[in-house]
Amino acid sequence: MLHLVGLGLADETDITVRGLEIVKRAERVYLEAYTSILLVDKEKLEAFYGRPVIEADRELVETGSDDILADGDKVDIVFLVVGDPFGATTHTDLVLRARELGIETKVVPNASIMSGIGCTGLQLYNFGQTVSMVFFTETWKPSSYYDRVRENVQTGLHTLVLLDIKVKEQSLENMARGRRIFEPPRYMTVAQCAAQMLETEEERQEGVYGPDSLAVGAARVGAANQKLVSGTLKELSTVEMGAPLHSLVLLGRRTHELERDYIREYAVNKETFDASYAKGYGASL
Amino acid sequence: MLHLVGLGLADETDITVRGLEIVKRAERVYLEAYTSILLVDKEKLEAFYGRPVIEADRELVETGSDDILADGDKVDIVFLVVGDPFGATTHTDLVLRARELGIETKVVPNASIMSGIGCTGLQLYNFGQTVSMVFFTETWKPSSYYDRVRENVQTGLHTLVLLDIKVKEQSLENMARGRRIFEPPRYMTVAQCAAQMLETEEERQEGVYGPDSLAVGAARVGAANQKLVSGTLKELSTVEMGAPLHSLVLLGRRTHELERDYIREYAVNKETFDASYAKGYGASL
Repeated sequence: MLHLVGLGLADETDITVRGLEIVKRAERVYLEAYTSILLVDKEKLEAFYGRPVIEADRELVETGSDDILADGDKVDIVFLVVGDPFGATTHTDLVLRARELGIETKVVPNASIMSGIGCTGLQLYNFGQTVSMVFFTETWKPSSYYDRVRENVQTGLHTLVLLDIKVKEQSLENMARGRRIFEPPRYMTVAQCAAQMLETEEERQEGVYGPDSLAVGAARVGAANQKLVSGTLKELSTVEMGAPLHSLVLLGRRTHELERDYIREYAVNKETFDASYAKGYGASL
Repeated sequence: MLHLVGLGLADETDITVRGLEIVKRAERVYLEAYTSILLVDKEKLEAFYGRPVIEADRELVETGSDDILADGDKVDIVFLVVGDPFGATTHTDLVLRARELGIETKVVPNASIMSGIGCTGLQLYNFGQTVSMVFFTETWKPSSYYDRVRENVQTGLHTLVLLDIKVKEQSLENMARGRRIFEPPRYMTVAQCAAQMLETEEERQEGVYGPDSLAVGAARVGAANQKLVSGTLKELSTVEMGAPLHSLVLLGRRTHELERDYIREYAVNKETFDASYAKGYGASL
């Protein structure tokens, strides 16, 4: 049997009691370690579980899934996923492959950033579709997310923006020479995301949002040192939120006053917050 | 300190390790028992925690929150919430009251139906806003949800519909006479929801969806006996999904073929599924 076990958002104690029991008695335990990270490392997990954990990088999951699933019809295999197994990154390909091999799959759900973002005080009911923001380069600044944000903005809904992470990436030179040397991991910050959003708006000039649009930055959701900041995109483009992971929510026009009161408490600057809010937000709009 | 602890979706073992530690050493533990339910009863939780749990009904939370928060500046108080504390039903009012009283609040996130619904194989990225469906009566059939569904349909997104539950409701007669006698709990089924959706469409006649529109019914998400069914709204209006809780997802036009393949596996009838799908779904639309 293949068990997809969610780890939640912050540290080793965020696993559920049911998940922990399964991990302890499984034959092999893999950790998906390329689409998201916990705020603790693999060694901490191993100490907590009292057993070894095999790191599964993109290569192993995408081309070596049959190794992961080996003997899955006879023994229990665990695939640990940060957040929820069917959250931001789903592993339906692994499940479909297991199904083909006649291996049963079970899922242990956990907190995902898609629901954990409710800690901002913004109602999950008022979110539209979620978008992803990748690291821009000099020559590659994809803006398809902008069209989806527009759809949410037109309806008046909040947009959760999930931020890129780069783990075990090779430089072009190392890749060309076949050297398995990896760049240090990179995690997009709220400030980078806000700056890239403004860059896209400047390029597209379609007025989906602007420097005065309100947003919420969230860092380390679910952890003891979680940090929330609200402000204009311009303010957030220079905000310092500390260690990863970060997310951003672009505020929708149909914000309820209870939501406003809640996020105003952690505004960078209550004066600019109120001024921007008065210009275009409120449930009656 | 006030700890809002998420319980996840199914049974007593869905609490996180961190959550369980907090529950075991807290001074008082309340269970929010009127907006959602676990699939096990309070006694099971008490046996698992090894301590008493106080059931908090709507009355206590809404008018007796100061009793819940008593001594919260000196001792640890736990407020257990099915799912995630900031999921479908948020308790921002309790948090705001704690803040007024100078009581610090911490949150232990967990799986919520808002992310757990990813188990259907539908991508959380492709969901628009979530709506709620209440039990219709002869004289009260609120259809404001229909306008929100329309916004999602126009954008091509899936809609998660959360279904009403009635716990500790009094009949009008008992209420008038001040008798604290409660009706048996009621939980809306997928079939009732689909039927009510079709009733609204028949009344409004605005073509937001119809009997042939595709949807997914989900029962007991996260539990061992979880059940998923896909089909047309007409098919789902007579489907039998067993014990609560149920949810429904109305399929958006922009369904990806991987999503289609996944949900087609559990179609009531693959032939009608394919026929309906061909008429109006697919990522290119």
